Amino acid sequence: MLPNPAAKKEPIALRDMGSFHIGGRIVEVTGKPVREVVFAAGGTPAKMDPNGPYQVEQMYVQYFFPATRKGKYPLLMWHGGGLTGVTYETTPDGRDGWLNMFVRKGWDVYVSDAVERGRSGYPSPDIWPSSPVFLTRANAFERFRIGAGPGSWNPDPAKLKTLPGSQFPVEAYDNFVRQNVPRWLDSDKAIVAAYTELVQKVCPCVILFHSQAGGFAFRIAQEHPDKVKALVAVEPAVPGDPAKAAALKNVPTLMVFGDYIEQDSRWPTMRAKDVSFGDAIKAAGGSVDVVDLPKVGIKGNSHMLMMDKNNGQVADLIQDWLVKKGLVE
Amino acid sequence: MLPNPAAKKEPIALRDMGSFHIGGRIVEVTGKPVREVVFAAGGTPAKMDPNGPYQVEQMYVQYFFPATRKGKYPLLMWHGGGLTGVTYETTPDGRDGWLNMFVRKGWDVYVSDAVERGRSGYPSPDIWPSSPVFLTRANAFERFRIGAGPGSWNPDPAKLKTLPGSQFPVEAYDNFVRQNVPRWLDSDKAIVAAYTELVQKVCPCVILFHSQAGGFAFRIAQEHPDKVKALVAVEPAVPGDPAKAAALKNVPTLMVFGDYIEQDSRWPTMRAKDVSFGDAIKAAGGSVDVVDLPKVGIKGNSHMLMMDKNNGQVADLIQDWLVKKGLVE
Repeated sequence: MLPNPAAKKEPIALRDMGSFHIGGRIVEVTGKPVREVVFAAGGTPAKMDPNGPYQVEQMYVQYFFPATRKGKYPLLMWHGGGLTGVTYETTPDGRDGWLNMFVRKGWDVYVSDAVERGRSGYPSPDIWPSSPVFLTRANAFERFRIGAGPGSWNPDPAKLKTLPGSQFPVEAYDNFVRQNVPRWLDSDKAIVAAYTELVQKVCPCVILFHSQAGGFAFRIAQEHPDKVKALVAVEPAVPGDPAKAAALKNVPTLMVFGDYIEQDSRWPTMRAKDVSFGDAIKAAGGSVDVVDLPKVGIKGNSHMLMMDKNNGQVADLIQDWLVKKGLVE
Repeated sequence: MLPNPAAKKEPIALRDMGSFHIGGRIVEVTGKPVREVVFAAGGTPAKMDPNGPYQVEQMYVQYFFPATRKGKYPLLMWHGGGLTGVTYETTPDGRDGWLNMFVRKGWDVYVSDAVERGRSGYPSPDIWPSSPVFLTRANAFERFRIGAGPGSWNPDPAKLKTLPGSQFPVEAYDNFVRQNVPRWLDSDKAIVAAYTELVQKVCPCVILFHSQAGGFAFRIAQEHPDKVKALVAVEPAVPGDPAKAAALKNVPTLMVFGDYIEQDSRWPTMRAKDVSFGDAIKAAGGSVDVVDLPKVGIKGNSHMLMMDKNNGQVADLIQDWLVKKGLVE
């Protein structure tokens, strides 16, 4: 979907916007043969010596600061696996994403691309010998509770087996597929290092995170609870370390889950692990709110809550919780 | 460099901002063996069937529309090789880039990541069997006229042989290195296809392009001159097709070159080819302005003009030219 410049929206007034890269390390490559490469079609081959120092594992961060700040702390938005910060921008069908919504609500928002994804770049095979994985056009449809599980996707839109009542903008599903990027399966350490550096630089903050980023945000908050004023866990695929649950006793935590969890093959187990982790935080004296959206009357949400047609309603629910926690001026 | 929320800047008022992906194609992968992969450390191996349809070669585009539009047409910003749209965002030392500057001047700006770079993603080796190239930490310093050619970079900042009078923010050079992403050498066709689709959707427009994108913007403008109201070529590394120069006779063109061209090993030839292409457009009745910045008193510019300390002065020069061409209300 393309932007519609004629669409009537409230203007967004920013006191600043921009981006930076953070973190990473320098790796020296040695002993590799010089290659011959042709940089432009028809050009003369040039010698390319791959040996030398490389900057790797840095992370891209884009920020938007509203003219009138109301969130007491910056709000960091961390995406899930195989995706980038685009997750929080415009929805696949061209509506405002949570980035715009929370900037409009007065939050200083930082959106990042985890290490090795999107604008963060990725290291050469000389440095990371493993390979990333690539997902088929059908994968997210069947796995993210848009369709009714394996076999529900079909190249013919008329034959898609979409979950009844789904709020996902199915007519724009292929625009979501376009947002997918390759992902490595052994990059957690580098990702955590870069996010940790971000937290140390721009926090205290609130971290809103999705799916795979549960494995990063919970653990980083457990290591640096003084830096984190609240955690908003949107269908975290991975909980924190239960043995260190007490570290989060002063970090109010909201967990949000969408619809169709019970009928999914994987989500009942993942949700149970998250809830059990939340129980451990509560047992240590912490505050954890688990919201199953269907139970509060918000139905039809896929795993991509921030893109669903009712994404504004879910954003409002999160904002209400942040207000209740005293995080909004 | 991190943003400084306390820095005093004029606010940016936007009537909208967002992003979308455009273009690409569906490719069917068949006959590949099923792999076993572990999606999370310590997890159970899952079977991963790489066969099926893939969405590939799409392009990421982010847009910012000022509340008060003054540019008569959208302004598209296309980056150079090994980089992404980040080129036009905040500079490596944390100042406004051309994106903010031209939005403040009242242009609807679209910044894109060429196919296979940044948030556009890239296809699997099953679909693109070739490999991308990766550049060392030293490469841009020695090749982009920041340092005095080969051997000028050094890991010890005190030993960097920076060109005398350089406007590049050398103290933040490593932040520029962090912006580098891998690039393929055989992706031109896919890149041109996606940019062409963008032009067909959001133009008529002005295209501002840098370095490698000369090979895309000139050629696309030659195929669709009705869609392009002006071309701003910032050190294009590749000219258009001289045989079709007449196609641009109604497309006013500005070419901007920085400093230290004569003493570089490659730029005198590249500049000569660009100027010769411009001459061919003029011979066909077109309008081409070639500005060598040192000749108009703007000295010290590297190949990354949009990041140099005087990037605002260069932006103003471009804006003045756009005003003269009648492209500003």
